Amino acid sequence: MQPDAALIPFPGPGPGWTPGIDGLVDCLLGDRPPRVWSLLVTIFGDLARDGSARLGGQLINRLTDRMRLKPEAVRVALHRLRKDSWIESERAGRQSLYRLTPSGRTQSRAASPLIYARTAPAELAWLVLADRTEMPEGAASGIVWILPHAGLTTYPPRDPGHLHLPLPADTHVPGWIRTRVCDENLVRMAHEFEARLVRLDDLCGSRPRFGPIETAMLRVLLVHGWRRIALKAPTLPDHVFPETWRGGSCRSRVTALLDRLPRPHPDDLVADITA
Amino acid sequence: MQPDAALIPFPGPGPGWTPGIDGLVDCLLGDRPPRVWSLLVTIFGDLARDGSARLGGQLINRLTDRMRLKPEAVRVALHRLRKDSWIESERAGRQSLYRLTPSGRTQSRAASPLIYARTAPAELAWLVLADRTEMPEGAASGIVWILPHAGLTTYPPRDPGHLHLPLPADTHVPGWIRTRVCDENLVRMAHEFEARLVRLDDLCGSRPRFGPIETAMLRVLLVHGWRRIALKAPTLPDHVFPETWRGGSCRSRVTALLDRLPRPHPDDLVADITA
Repeated sequence: MQPDAALIPFPGPGPGWTPGIDGLVDCLLGDRPPRVWSLLVTIFGDLARDGSARLGGQLINRLTDRMRLKPEAVRVALHRLRKDSWIESERAGRQSLYRLTPSGRTQSRAASPLIYARTAPAELAWLVLADRTEMPEGAASGIVWILPHAGLTTYPPRDPGHLHLPLPADTHVPGWIRTRVCDENLVRMAHEFEARLVRLDDLCGSRPRFGPIETAMLRVLLVHGWRRIALKAPTLPDHVFPETWRGGSCRSRVTALLDRLPRPHPDDLVADITA
Repeated sequence: MQPDAALIPFPGPGPGWTPGIDGLVDCLLGDRPPRVWSLLVTIFGDLARDGSARLGGQLINRLTDRMRLKPEAVRVALHRLRKDSWIESERAGRQSLYRLTPSGRTQSRAASPLIYARTAPAELAWLVLADRTEMPEGAASGIVWILPHAGLTTYPPRDPGHLHLPLPADTHVPGWIRTRVCDENLVRMAHEFEARLVRLDDLCGSRPRFGPIETAMLRVLLVHGWRRIALKAPTLPDHVFPETWRGGSCRSRVTALLDRLPRPHPDDLVADITA
């Protein structure tokens, strides 16, 4: 399946036009605003993952406002994240400064390898054949069960009661196995996200530079869009996914775009607001 | 499991003694006389497989008498084999001459590769994974089903709806798979037959030569004992059988013994009776 750029409404009036940041944000956002709580997790995870990094309420509002989130909803979500011990806050003059708690930081870092990886999270696949129906225990063991007694995993043999056979990349994997590895909803999400990335790449090409806040907005939306897919996809090599799976293309497009949009320093973000 | 020669009662009085043919026949026969009908199929299959080869009633009685089969039972079985069009007969003076019908010969020849093969009937094993429960159709397709959706076969991929993965000889195959490849009854039959072959090998060592009829009797009993195992065992390589499977050892011992006991010409058998 080729990325279908026609899926995404073109945000500008025609060729030769230089898109504003709103057009780029719209391109990544699509029709629906993101969930506030989840987007804040992405903001802290991408922009403030270091122990000392703090994000002011003003900066958070500036970022979320452009993403069509209401200030009240953001306030409620920040309160909830504090109650869940994901973030903590302190007063600094007229505004609050927020940062990840050690626990929030640990969980953000745990998800990072899957989100920021430049390569597929798995290269090898093994077929596992079990005598008993092992589904309940399966999730914890990293096995994606495709039949009551059979599953796929990227991890090497552990249980001597299982038959483990490697699945080389040139194995003919029938469609019914591929669709059980990854459901069609996730396949469609990746397909649509790829189309946004293609369009964004085009639009960014005519915008050579971005300010710190613009950069932060684009990074957050890129990471947020990809995170929803990358964390749901099973840890298996692309060659066992459905033929129409575009996750690999999304991954390389996201990392290439993030390379063009280096993470701004929190101080530069503050300076950009007050400028 | 080592071959257990103590299983078989020693047929002679002590070391240095040269066993008579009865001792050798008893060693192969064991406790129970073979089934008459089945043994006659072996006799014709081994001694008279060529189109022109005929076996006289007198020769058949001489062979079967030493194998503790009653002449009436042999007569009934010969009659039944004629009715089933496996053999046909003609009169020659005072006795009947029997030979395989074209159909009997075809069926005897079809079984030959499995019985007389010097090597395992299969070297490669594939795991087959099917979406539907395919057991009924499985037998015809050469797949040994070990789970409702999973089986082993030596034949290369045919159905694109199946996942086929090769099982190299160094694969760790769990016990529960091996016991479904070959049940414990067949494993025990092979174990016991191997013990008889070990003992026969010892006994034959002290008997450098056998006459035509003696040779024929030993051949028939060797082929008959091995046939019951070889035709029941699935066409799969030894490395997926139970660890205690001695079929491979039986096969090489049987072929080595048959090499020492070349098939006698029917004329020499007749000459041996009248001698």
